[in-house]
Amino acid sequence: MILDDFGRESVTGEQQSASQPQRIDRYVGQYAERAVDMVASEIRALFAVAARPEIVSLAGGSPYVAALPLDVVGEMIGQLIANHGATALQYCTAQGDAGLRERICDVMALEQIRAHPDEVVITVGSQQALDLLTRIFIDPGDVILVEAPSYVGALGAFAAYQANVVHVPMDDDGLIPEALEEAIARTAAAGKRAKFLYTVPNFQNPAGVTLAAGRRHRILDICRRVGLLVVEDNPYGLLGFESEPMRALRADDAEGVVYLGTFSKTFAAGVRVGWALAPPAIRDKLILAAESAVLCHSSFSQLTVREYLNTQPWQEQIKDFRELYRERRDATLTALSAMMPPGCHWTRPAGGFYVWLGLPEGINAKAMLPRAISSRVAYVPGTGFYADGSGGGFARLCYSFPDPDRITEGVRRLASVIENEIQLRDDFGPPRTPATR
Amino acid sequence: MILDDFGRESVTGEQQSASQPQRIDRYVGQYAERAVDMVASEIRALFAVAARPEIVSLAGGSPYVAALPLDVVGEMIGQLIANHGATALQYCTAQGDAGLRERICDVMALEQIRAHPDEVVITVGSQQALDLLTRIFIDPGDVILVEAPSYVGALGAFAAYQANVVHVPMDDDGLIPEALEEAIARTAAAGKRAKFLYTVPNFQNPAGVTLAAGRRHRILDICRRVGLLVVEDNPYGLLGFESEPMRALRADDAEGVVYLGTFSKTFAAGVRVGWALAPPAIRDKLILAAESAVLCHSSFSQLTVREYLNTQPWQEQIKDFRELYRERRDATLTALSAMMPPGCHWTRPAGGFYVWLGLPEGINAKAMLPRAISSRVAYVPGTGFYADGSGGGFARLCYSFPDPDRITEGVRRLASVIENEIQLRDDFGPPRTPATR
Repeated sequence: MILDDFGRESVTGEQQSASQPQRIDRYVGQYAERAVDMVASEIRALFAVAARPEIVSLAGGSPYVAALPLDVVGEMIGQLIANHGATALQYCTAQGDAGLRERICDVMALEQIRAHPDEVVITVGSQQALDLLTRIFIDPGDVILVEAPSYVGALGAFAAYQANVVHVPMDDDGLIPEALEEAIARTAAAGKRAKFLYTVPNFQNPAGVTLAAGRRHRILDICRRVGLLVVEDNPYGLLGFESEPMRALRADDAEGVVYLGTFSKTFAAGVRVGWALAPPAIRDKLILAAESAVLCHSSFSQLTVREYLNTQPWQEQIKDFRELYRERRDATLTALSAMMPPGCHWTRPAGGFYVWLGLPEGINAKAMLPRAISSRVAYVPGTGFYADGSGGGFARLCYSFPDPDRITEGVRRLASVIENEIQLRDDFGPPRTPATR
Repeated sequence: MILDDFGRESVTGEQQSASQPQRIDRYVGQYAERAVDMVASEIRALFAVAARPEIVSLAGGSPYVAALPLDVVGEMIGQLIANHGATALQYCTAQGDAGLRERICDVMALEQIRAHPDEVVITVGSQQALDLLTRIFIDPGDVILVEAPSYVGALGAFAAYQANVVHVPMDDDGLIPEALEEAIARTAAAGKRAKFLYTVPNFQNPAGVTLAAGRRHRILDICRRVGLLVVEDNPYGLLGFESEPMRALRADDAEGVVYLGTFSKTFAAGVRVGWALAPPAIRDKLILAAESAVLCHSSFSQLTVREYLNTQPWQEQIKDFRELYRERRDATLTALSAMMPPGCHWTRPAGGFYVWLGLPEGINAKAMLPRAISSRVAYVPGTGFYADGSGGGFARLCYSFPDPDRITEGVRRLASVIENEIQLRDDFGPPRTPATR
């Protein structure tokens, strides 16, 4: 009954049609091989559910953009269009606006990166950079080494090009160098060569852990030794709560690292402005791939971000965001400590948006989700963050959007749901994963 | 000497690195097969050249966005961000804003299309729709039937997925039905099946011709008979100079046609808002492909377009654009008639941005381009619009951006260049295509 309610209420027209097979599809035999198995991601199906106001969503991943001075930003953009609309509303080059690329180099300098604007390609969020990198490097079956767990959007991009994702374990200090060496060796033993390592070194999505300073050179050395390209995806690096931004991997290896950045978390997700900083040969391929994918990025968005960086106190705004998210992180950890039943364990992020919650033995986050939604709290099951469908014993909690009181209430509800699951487990044995998901 | 000057002055850092091989590329053996042959398009390399103020550019393809009331649009966007910034600067769903999709159905109703907002997917310009459609339908070697000549960006997207483009001839009434039948038969005889027909029925880019009303049903019938999907790309349909918008192909076949639209030419190219209207099964694949490509489109751009359609006299603005472009088309045709040497011939577009200029026997548009640039006029050689590199006897002239006096001056310069080519041809035989391009 609860399951039925969840199913009916949460699946809107869009999700329904995307996640359920069509009754008649006359093109069914005509799709490309890569498209045959396209299925809706769990996160997307969740967005509609979690948007209902009575639900505390710890799912999302949305930045709290309402913290921006919207009237000031509005005034700035209005002036930009009135004075420079003929440029801001026109096509741009595929590489992106040169002035914005200059300012992006200033942003990256905060993480000790020395780069030239010519080395930067503007992308539609860093998601597009992931898509384009995969497009230029991956033939079907090619291996990508990926942290376990890892960002669901990256896994989606890799799957779209039929990559073979090989997961590499992390611990509280991030990617484990010995595990990386082992994965490289195992890949080689299978007669393959990994095309790149994908890592989110700071405040990782979803695990919330950070690659320790002492491991960074080690990881770079390992990759350099075998000629393995590193893709350093860094959406959260400037959102650390406890120290100055860490030195980027790219700061110590300009030829072996492609660095991905974005303004989604430090300014506004809705402008979809990200970038890739890449060695020249890769940059050239990225520009050409971007051109065939979208012709060029939005001048409107790019010039808005450029104007924001040129005229607004953007570093002060990042400090405000840090303070805001630090409070929410604190509320999350305090509530988890106070309320979670025995057997739960979780990471303690020093920045970013996410806590990775391990559930008690025998409790499955995917199976539990409908009951959590019924109890008016949402999260993302850990299974979304593994290419192999494992991770059922984990949930990603995102604290960036709800205020501290809502977070506390959400954790309270979640703790109660988990307690009920424990009770059910002890009475009847572990629940089964629904066959339909 | 002229060639050298052209080469040095016009090739900026970006173009240089993109079009010339790197001296050292340590990743050279690691790229995906689809990326190995990626080369810069002629149009992109031209953008930097043609932007120099002393050059009359008939190349580009840029709309004249300065005709918009930029102060009014700026004020509108400023208010939008001040009042709704928390939404406009936030993530969106992968399908796109529901309110915008409703208004898009109103826009398409001008071409007799009856559609539901659920059938629409918002894309990063219609270029992204082309990319995503190719992504979901094309395995390497699959056939796409494409008008000859055709839009360079579509050819780029098709090439990125290693499609096999089979060109179908047009005449002054657009795609020739008998030629389409012949191409379908030829493809079948080769043991293949075309995945879709790509057509720009109105004021075609680059040829400037329009598919005659009497041919539209015929084309649809042919495609229906063999189960061939039609991709109807229609950026210019509302920019006709001489009559009401024509009835779209999609208006007569909801299941067999994917319709692509864009606001690039009717509002602003810089917002990069396009859309695909597709049968449900294809729409679902497009949404999933869009999600893995860019996560979601910019809310900022989408809500700006929605607000523009909701609050501004957008149909009046389109009339203004039509009048502006009609004057420029007239200036182009008048100048061509007055100045072009014998042996030239050209199309007479009833709307849109382009005239397709045929050069006298033995004159090659690609070989002539450096000399045209030296004479301060730019165009796009016809070779960019054929997958097989033919089309050297043609040039695309775009009249949308320069004012009528500039157009007249540009055509004057071009006529003089062609006359010199004729002289050279008659004195020394046909010039050779530069080996480097």
